[in-house]
Amino acid sequence: MAQPIADRRDVDFVLHEQMEVTRLTENETFAEFNKKTIDMIVSEARSLAIKEIMPTQEPGDAGCVFDGGTVTLPECYSRPWELFIEGEWLAMADTPEWGGQGMPKTVALAANEYFIGANVAFMLYHGLTHGAAKMVEEIGNDAQKKTYLKKLYSGEWAGTMLLTEACAGSDVGALETTARKNPDGTYSITGSKIFISGGEHNMTPNIVHPVLARIEGAPEGTRGISLFLVPKYRVNEDGSIGEFNDVVCTGIEHKMGINGSATCSLTLGGSGNCIGELLGEENKGMRNMFIMMNDARQLVGLQGFGVATASYMHALAYARERVQGANMVKPKEGSVPIIQHPDVRRQLLEMKANVEGMRSLIYFSGICHDMVKLAEDEETRLEYSQLLEILTPIIKGYVTDKANEVCSHGVQVYGGYGYCRDFPVEQLLRDSRIFQIYEGTNGIQSMDLLGRKVGMSKGKPFMGFLARIKKTIDQAKESEALSPLAVKLEAVYTRFNEVVVSLANAAMGEKVQSAFAQSHPLLTATGDLTFGWLLLWRAVTAEKALAGKPKKKDLPFYEGQIKTCAYYINNTLAVTLGRLAAIEDMDDAVIGISEESFGSK
Amino acid sequence: MAQPIADRRDVDFVLHEQMEVTRLTENETFAEFNKKTIDMIVSEARSLAIKEIMPTQEPGDAGCVFDGGTVTLPECYSRPWELFIEGEWLAMADTPEWGGQGMPKTVALAANEYFIGANVAFMLYHGLTHGAAKMVEEIGNDAQKKTYLKKLYSGEWAGTMLLTEACAGSDVGALETTARKNPDGTYSITGSKIFISGGEHNMTPNIVHPVLARIEGAPEGTRGISLFLVPKYRVNEDGSIGEFNDVVCTGIEHKMGINGSATCSLTLGGSGNCIGELLGEENKGMRNMFIMMNDARQLVGLQGFGVATASYMHALAYARERVQGANMVKPKEGSVPIIQHPDVRRQLLEMKANVEGMRSLIYFSGICHDMVKLAEDEETRLEYSQLLEILTPIIKGYVTDKANEVCSHGVQVYGGYGYCRDFPVEQLLRDSRIFQIYEGTNGIQSMDLLGRKVGMSKGKPFMGFLARIKKTIDQAKESEALSPLAVKLEAVYTRFNEVVVSLANAAMGEKVQSAFAQSHPLLTATGDLTFGWLLLWRAVTAEKALAGKPKKKDLPFYEGQIKTCAYYINNTLAVTLGRLAAIEDMDDAVIGISEESFGSK
Repeated sequence: MAQPIADRRDVDFVLHEQMEVTRLTENETFAEFNKKTIDMIVSEARSLAIKEIMPTQEPGDAGCVFDGGTVTLPECYSRPWELFIEGEWLAMADTPEWGGQGMPKTVALAANEYFIGANVAFMLYHGLTHGAAKMVEEIGNDAQKKTYLKKLYSGEWAGTMLLTEACAGSDVGALETTARKNPDGTYSITGSKIFISGGEHNMTPNIVHPVLARIEGAPEGTRGISLFLVPKYRVNEDGSIGEFNDVVCTGIEHKMGINGSATCSLTLGGSGNCIGELLGEENKGMRNMFIMMNDARQLVGLQGFGVATASYMHALAYARERVQGANMVKPKEGSVPIIQHPDVRRQLLEMKANVEGMRSLIYFSGICHDMVKLAEDEETRLEYSQLLEILTPIIKGYVTDKANEVCSHGVQVYGGYGYCRDFPVEQLLRDSRIFQIYEGTNGIQSMDLLGRKVGMSKGKPFMGFLARIKKTIDQAKESEALSPLAVKLEAVYTRFNEVVVSLANAAMGEKVQSAFAQSHPLLTATGDLTFGWLLLWRAVTAEKALAGKPKKKDLPFYEGQIKTCAYYINNTLAVTLGRLAAIEDMDDAVIGISEESFGSK
Repeated sequence: MAQPIADRRDVDFVLHEQMEVTRLTENETFAEFNKKTIDMIVSEARSLAIKEIMPTQEPGDAGCVFDGGTVTLPECYSRPWELFIEGEWLAMADTPEWGGQGMPKTVALAANEYFIGANVAFMLYHGLTHGAAKMVEEIGNDAQKKTYLKKLYSGEWAGTMLLTEACAGSDVGALETTARKNPDGTYSITGSKIFISGGEHNMTPNIVHPVLARIEGAPEGTRGISLFLVPKYRVNEDGSIGEFNDVVCTGIEHKMGINGSATCSLTLGGSGNCIGELLGEENKGMRNMFIMMNDARQLVGLQGFGVATASYMHALAYARERVQGANMVKPKEGSVPIIQHPDVRRQLLEMKANVEGMRSLIYFSGICHDMVKLAEDEETRLEYSQLLEILTPIIKGYVTDKANEVCSHGVQVYGGYGYCRDFPVEQLLRDSRIFQIYEGTNGIQSMDLLGRKVGMSKGKPFMGFLARIKKTIDQAKESEALSPLAVKLEAVYTRFNEVVVSLANAAMGEKVQSAFAQSHPLLTATGDLTFGWLLLWRAVTAEKALAGKPKKKDLPFYEGQIKTCAYYINNTLAVTLGRLAAIEDMDDAVIGISEESFGSK
């Protein structure tokens, strides 16, 4: 049977050979884990994903049912939901003190790749629950942790995140939900929220909503926003479920995809009876939300990646099986599998290069998380946490842009069949389109990169990130086979250095708008360079393995790593050079054109 | 009210100022038409499209109903269907002898832009009917014309095109439908076809199917394929509808989009009772089909364009209305319409440039059609018909790739709302995805460009096409304002000339496969250059108008033309230069990588 979600050989390669994840287990924090347990975890996740979660993907696409305030999820979700909770998969990398499994984040990401690739809509509930729990762990007081944390990490209760309102989307500071302080220290919450994933459903006895709201009299804008914990049902002193907390679902969206994920509109305090507790300090809601936002954005990148790798696996299997047309250089030998046609092959290699770039990037972000945890000095901790901040817009923005492209190639490889709902690539493409939008549109990610991350701490962390790329280039230069690729990547690296500095300077000057009109192209160029680096790193690793007399069955894999890197550097990065020239040019048309000139009213 | 499908100002600009369509009416063939009648035709089409067809777009998305062999189209289609037929819109540019309106093709394309932008699924039925009719006109004998042609051009009956079978998609030559000659000269047809748009429905009393089939004993592959006319109901001597012809619909596809278009599976002769008449000569079916294929492919480009221009109009109106976030350089002035944010503006200008490139390209293809018709000497006729052959893969392949991108930007400008079915951009993105696939995937278009069109007639027509681009560059160089843009376009033009020759040579040599692995990038580069040319041509035209003291209200339009051209040349074409370098490099990874290396089985 074909690999259905992710290529296990590549998962293992990145975990063990590229990222050397077992090194982490030399530290006592991860002493319980070793190569064997790690492989077992991935195998179990893979098995649960394939056997139990994947079969719910297509039926779940029929969507959720809203009826009189209740939301019923697809019936088929019940069993895998239970198994997922039973297997304690929700808080894999979190602290055992509160019910987590304490494993390296890198390993948890590999497991999640399978779960998400099996059904991203299903996994959204668990991802949000995890995010809400993490917020309670990081910001909550002891009582809040005691009341909520274990119930969330275990998955007994679900969690969400209530930010968006009809007139406060990208501009969160415009929100209108209010909180009035009660004599007992709680707050009465009133407002309406939209686009709330998992805002209401029938899978758990309670749902915990972290809510952004403004305390009456607080400043306008983001400086006056506070964070509250608002459960669907209040919680009694003994932890049991109390009375209904006046959080009412008023409808669900009908969407292009992720239809198994209920996107809810919620009214809080419509009957004047919604009580929340302050989470963290007053008016620090935005800052606290941003602590979590990076995690949430990295999760969206993981979602894009999970869906893209599934699409690639399907397209690859199809291209190996579907017989259509003769081989170009052997026309008389009759019809062949379409993987033999150059343009199909190009699309598959484009998919492969991007999916593998994603995997390396996302597992590397896991290493960074783990290094933050293991760091014995503040310098190391800061290095990895700042590196994560830099990687976040690339993971959220660039990965999801590419994921949508990969899924579109997946459809194209299937031809007319790819456009039909009978084939999974169709749904994967629809599902993938949301990732570029939610948790901050990719436009916002690009502004984050140019406006915050490049110049953060006087640019030192960004320079540190680039130095890692240079190091891999220097390593590759020592190999005869890889040196030409390293030289090409270095040319892009050098141009990138020049351009990013010139754009960052422009962004602080008079031409700030024209500079930000190039922020998305810069995000793309940064992502291209990052993937070029990670694929060259893979090639260096593969070449070492080839030099070490590997098993014969492993040869195609390692040789494929070098070819994939060559494809990417020779094709994609050539285009990147052109893009960098345009960014440097910083043409003023986008800003200079008048609003009227866009078209008649 | 905002322009809802296409910007009429731009439609008029391309028709009258860029393409000077009224020049055609100096010829007696089009003597009935003048600027006034042309404008009236466009206005009437626009009005019908907006008032009657556009309201069916969203309800039509609910799809068609298949039940026991019958297919029921969305109820709301009935009224606009009738009005479309009554208004004689189906055969606008066809010969009055057979019921056509005899107008210039260029004008018909402008009208169709509105119809298709209003509801592409609805218009598919009429597009296919027109294609079937054209085939009868070009290849049919007098009796066939008499029986079918007026009924098709009037829209009284519908038409289709039966090519694809389950194992014969891109490889049409693999088809298995057979035809056995009967003593009376007719043929008994037996086989099964899939993916037949409009293969069965309840809107017309009869449906005429041109069918590709192999006469028993004919050669294998494409050389043994013949074309047959197979009506759903046989036609009596007097033209009235006779008995059922054993063409049975066995199901319809459930698709990502164009759900108002019934995509049918048909069984022919399941009861041994399906009779067809030969259309054209025996075993010349593929050749004859290809006569029509160029038209069909151009229509798909028009579909992509129509949907993209609608998405742009929606996104523009939304960006002007939706207030969210402060202006970057006036943060204290509060929230502003999102069109003021640089990255939203970049996306809108990207959409505008592409939509306007498409409009100029497609109207220019209309001019070519009209020039073929008006040509007084064979040289002129050949020049324009060969130019059309060159433009076809660009119109089908490049335009539909860009149309899908434009529609994706449309969703992105709407943010979370864009992902919801309540907003038209969501459906437009789903609808647009098929255009890259049907009538020959865009991979096949790119092979057509590199394998046939570049080298056709020793490359003379392709050089003639490039010479037109050079001519516009030279014109623009004479203008002080446009000269820098002309110089930049010339640099791309020069590189393109080098690269296309080197790739075409490689495609005839040993590295044919590596060359064809670059065919899609070449198609993209060719399209980029073509749009750069057309946008510079627009800028030259606009600058002339500006020099002639235009009305004040026209200034933003003309200035916008120059800004759009600058944006495109400075941004998109910089990237094209990078792409051309990669094409020239012709890296061998796509072909060199082993099939096993793509991933574990």
